[in-house]
Amino acid sequence: MSASELFSDNVKGLKGSAIREILKFTQDPSVISFAGGLPAPESFPLAELSEIAAKVFGEEMGRTALQYGVTEGYTPLVECTAERLSRKFGLGGPKDKLLITSGAQQVIDFAAKVFLNPGDAVIVEQPSFVGALNCFRSYSARLIPVAMDDEGMVMEDLEDILKREKNVKLIYTIPTYQNPTGRTLPMERRKKMVELAERYNVYVIEDNPYGELSFGDPQPKAMKAMDESGHFIYAGTFSKILSPGMRLGYALANEEIIGRMAVIKQTEDVHTTLPTQMIAAEYMKQYDLDAHIEKIRPIYRHRKETMLRFMDECFPKEVTYTRPDGGIFLWCTLPEYCDTLKLAAKATERKVAFVPGVTFMVDDEAPSCSFRLNYSTMSDERIEKGIKTLGELLTEVIHG
Amino acid sequence: MSASELFSDNVKGLKGSAIREILKFTQDPSVISFAGGLPAPESFPLAELSEIAAKVFGEEMGRTALQYGVTEGYTPLVECTAERLSRKFGLGGPKDKLLITSGAQQVIDFAAKVFLNPGDAVIVEQPSFVGALNCFRSYSARLIPVAMDDEGMVMEDLEDILKREKNVKLIYTIPTYQNPTGRTLPMERRKKMVELAERYNVYVIEDNPYGELSFGDPQPKAMKAMDESGHFIYAGTFSKILSPGMRLGYALANEEIIGRMAVIKQTEDVHTTLPTQMIAAEYMKQYDLDAHIEKIRPIYRHRKETMLRFMDECFPKEVTYTRPDGGIFLWCTLPEYCDTLKLAAKATERKVAFVPGVTFMVDDEAPSCSFRLNYSTMSDERIEKGIKTLGELLTEVIHG
Repeated sequence: MSASELFSDNVKGLKGSAIREILKFTQDPSVISFAGGLPAPESFPLAELSEIAAKVFGEEMGRTALQYGVTEGYTPLVECTAERLSRKFGLGGPKDKLLITSGAQQVIDFAAKVFLNPGDAVIVEQPSFVGALNCFRSYSARLIPVAMDDEGMVMEDLEDILKREKNVKLIYTIPTYQNPTGRTLPMERRKKMVELAERYNVYVIEDNPYGELSFGDPQPKAMKAMDESGHFIYAGTFSKILSPGMRLGYALANEEIIGRMAVIKQTEDVHTTLPTQMIAAEYMKQYDLDAHIEKIRPIYRHRKETMLRFMDECFPKEVTYTRPDGGIFLWCTLPEYCDTLKLAAKATERKVAFVPGVTFMVDDEAPSCSFRLNYSTMSDERIEKGIKTLGELLTEVIHG
Repeated sequence: MSASELFSDNVKGLKGSAIREILKFTQDPSVISFAGGLPAPESFPLAELSEIAAKVFGEEMGRTALQYGVTEGYTPLVECTAERLSRKFGLGGPKDKLLITSGAQQVIDFAAKVFLNPGDAVIVEQPSFVGALNCFRSYSARLIPVAMDDEGMVMEDLEDILKREKNVKLIYTIPTYQNPTGRTLPMERRKKMVELAERYNVYVIEDNPYGELSFGDPQPKAMKAMDESGHFIYAGTFSKILSPGMRLGYALANEEIIGRMAVIKQTEDVHTTLPTQMIAAEYMKQYDLDAHIEKIRPIYRHRKETMLRFMDECFPKEVTYTRPDGGIFLWCTLPEYCDTLKLAAKATERKVAFVPGVTFMVDDEAPSCSFRLNYSTMSDERIEKGIKTLGELLTEVIHG
């Protein structure tokens, strides 16, 4: 008898991330992969972190770092993170609290666990981050896609859904330099979403992993900073500005929600790894995180521009794509008759990888004519070579 | 309107750990606390870990350590952990796999999420580890206590429950130097549990955080090492042999179960913190973990003996207690008319803390005449002073 016969209803039908399967193929170094979503390793402040690690594992701090810590997070990290969010982004009111998590993925998981009964609805951008979609699926949530245009979620569609649907508990959004599209929600729509969340009493996970990686103008104000009714749960992370391997994220939300999340965290992993929390706190104390971010933005901007330049040059006119103001992804759309899952298989033969659009859809079996490109980790030469190969393939597919 | 009105059924009624509340009181340095459950900080191999941390955050390994890793765990850590479990404990068959987790708490959480629908039953020792009980509660599981005697879970009672109850999915057990009692399940009962798990098709979480901290004879063979039908999920941890702050645990189980756990891990926290995984792997490569464990065992044995010596001297004869062969806890039982929750309040006034038995019960509101004592972090002087104070109080309560 197989264990699977006893598996819970929530996890029985769960699928692993399709992206991870694609990434296995991309471990072949001859493959040019636009499929990933990794920050550039040269953006990690290794020398500084190395020096601080020696301190954190040293005689004075070491035994604290190696011992159990508190569930809410290492107090100096909680404090300096909250202070920075308040000072730079106007985030955090008198009723808010901050919880350090094992990456922002854990914020999404905790929010799901706090609010979702099986069958409850979660409204999501379509396309959206597959790690969030799978998380909601693991609670047997009903995913309701909301239409997007070039400026992100369409508010009329969102309001229609809120009027029509029952048991909508959560909206999940990446409003800034979205994954997978690179799109950014403008201010009027942000204000509208804040208003709708309060009016319809629905909670919003505002996931902002890429906001600090702006290329020109700074990122727009977070909705959480405009939310007076306590309906927004802000998910932040150090993954794209310091290091993803350290797994440091945070939730900023009303204390009632954070209180529940802390109770859940006790049952899930007790607390976030302490030495890495202490390293991040010391980094923020001894160095200027904002100056570091200023240094890494041009890396990503340059790669985006390089990619777009070759796309403009080599892609057939029928292919449209976003031109993100920040972040690490852009989104290509082919004529509707194209299925990018099949295209991905053909690209594989030519040693180029990307993630087909179907991966990011609520219905992850319906064909999609879009796909995601990532540019964050690659040299100009490889971007050029990969985009030219892809351009040839697209020309063949579309023009015959 | 409060967010709590929309909270999910699973988390609505969850309580925070009562122990954590007690621990707040024990932060006062004048309080002698037997309430904790921390490993002795002098047992951490700080000098070695410090040297290795410099290497992991150095030029050669640093950018790997700071980047995203794989969900299943850092491959060298997976491999050396699996090799050690096989070599020393006969653990791991051809159909088993190992998953690195953020502490053993996460193994319990994943097992619960893989198997439990609301209302499914989990059989637990009574008393048991409150972190596990709360985890099962967070899935709205029905907790069924099984009777314990001095040798742990009573197999006749376990079999009666398995015959009688419907939808029993899991048994949760800490068979060796149990938390909170310090009791150890003997070999015949282990064999019986392996047999019952297969016969009744129920899965067993065999949680073994303390097994390596034996005081004399080595720990008994794990049930997982005798399990041929794949019904055992072994939860291991580096918390008590290396460092709890690093949050490194692992699940060893049938590949089908580990596969589901890995999918869940993607949705919960993507992967376990990578630098600390690499530090643990390097530690096991460069140093002799077993020799380190040999050095820390006498620390705990000495403290247990010291505590028992003063208990024998100062506690009234009506108080009975366990004499553990390993681990960090022992369990005291008073005459039935005593309520140790009230006793704990009185002890607080005399600046001594322990955890009342009610905390570890399935029904955590019924009075309990037992309580848990921890000896792992304390000097002989403080043990003497605290136990003498407690002895006076117990004498007053029972005789006066």
